[in-house]
Amino acid sequence: MSKLRVHCFAISVDGYGAAPGQSLEHPIGEGGLALFDWLFPTRTFLRLHPGVVPGDAEGETGVEDDLAARGFEGIGAWILGRNMFGPVRGPWPDESWRGWWGDEPPYHTPVFVLTHHARAPLRMAGGTEFRFVTDGLESALRQARDAAGGRDVRLGGGVATIRQSLRAGLVDELHLAIAPVLLGRGEHLLAGLDLPALGYACAEHVPGARAAHVFLRRTSPPS
Amino acid sequence: MSKLRVHCFAISVDGYGAAPGQSLEHPIGEGGLALFDWLFPTRTFLRLHPGVVPGDAEGETGVEDDLAARGFEGIGAWILGRNMFGPVRGPWPDESWRGWWGDEPPYHTPVFVLTHHARAPLRMAGGTEFRFVTDGLESALRQARDAAGGRDVRLGGGVATIRQSLRAGLVDELHLAIAPVLLGRGEHLLAGLDLPALGYACAEHVPGARAAHVFLRRTSPPS
Repeated sequence: MSKLRVHCFAISVDGYGAAPGQSLEHPIGEGGLALFDWLFPTRTFLRLHPGVVPGDAEGETGVEDDLAARGFEGIGAWILGRNMFGPVRGPWPDESWRGWWGDEPPYHTPVFVLTHHARAPLRMAGGTEFRFVTDGLESALRQARDAAGGRDVRLGGGVATIRQSLRAGLVDELHLAIAPVLLGRGEHLLAGLDLPALGYACAEHVPGARAAHVFLRRTSPPS
Repeated sequence: MSKLRVHCFAISVDGYGAAPGQSLEHPIGEGGLALFDWLFPTRTFLRLHPGVVPGDAEGETGVEDDLAARGFEGIGAWILGRNMFGPVRGPWPDESWRGWWGDEPPYHTPVFVLTHHARAPLRMAGGTEFRFVTDGLESALRQARDAAGGRDVRLGGGVATIRQSLRAGLVDELHLAIAPVLLGRGEHLLAGLDLPALGYACAEHVPGARAAHVFLRRTSPPS
């Protein structure tokens, strides 16, 4: 069966996957962007987000670019939590919010957005289509697997969605980037989760120049 | 003034500095020794703990050996929490427990052991003398600084002692080794501590082959 994979999800040394205070100006909370200082200079990131960095930087290759690229290999659909799609809370006031990523988001597949509030699908340039799922994570996963046509499904985040997926034993592989920063507060990714009891082990460690990378994999059913 | 430094303190990816179930057979709890798989093969560790590894392995040099050695540079005294000294709880039944480390412990300085139960000093081979402090951490730090004669004081652990020291803003530098293992349960090092608010920042990241190393430093007074 196609796998559910998380890639390039960054946490601080003290374990936070997002800082407090998400807003339009601070998509990962105030100070949260520092979690991704390892990712932003990579060629893979820059090619998928043209115009983010002034000039025409080609981007770095190497370990961290390889890891960024690995996260797109064999992916046929994405799932995103509502907050990862945008800062809007509650019912959609109108159709104007179209994600953080401009006209051509970096997904290039169907993207299933978890929300409590129905909304018509949103077709973007480059093959991304946002589809809004109101009946929960497991339904989104079924729909994403159907759409992926045998390829894997990538779960983008955020913290609450990944925690829910780990608790339910749905995640097959989780690439964590441990960024050399302290946040002190925010959304803690692993607090209170007993991952070995949920069947997970740390299967791989990839030292990077700008962050430490580990791959957690589900190796046994939950105990 | 002489600094209070923590070195080579290992935590799991999920943030635990010790596993549950400390005992004579499991000094860092059941499964906890995996936190130090990066340290055991180093030349510095093997020289300080002769006989731990069968044969006469010389030990590895390189990044992680350099970090192990750095932890002994300029140190004139140590502080250890009671549990790091041994598995005995409550009043000392007798004088028979002399630490985990055999006749010649790896400290080679005065070592101030925090305890609620008085005990006579214990002189070991190689210059280590265990002195038992019953009036708290700040008293131990004063005594250790006196004994260190201008050199720095190293705080060995365990988790509870380091947390207390961070909360009080006493630690100047903390080298954390993030080991690529999951523990799931145990003593969490940083839960509920807002390190930036306590004046700490992540000042250095050293990628190692077997663990990720970061140095946290106090850069400002607690806010």
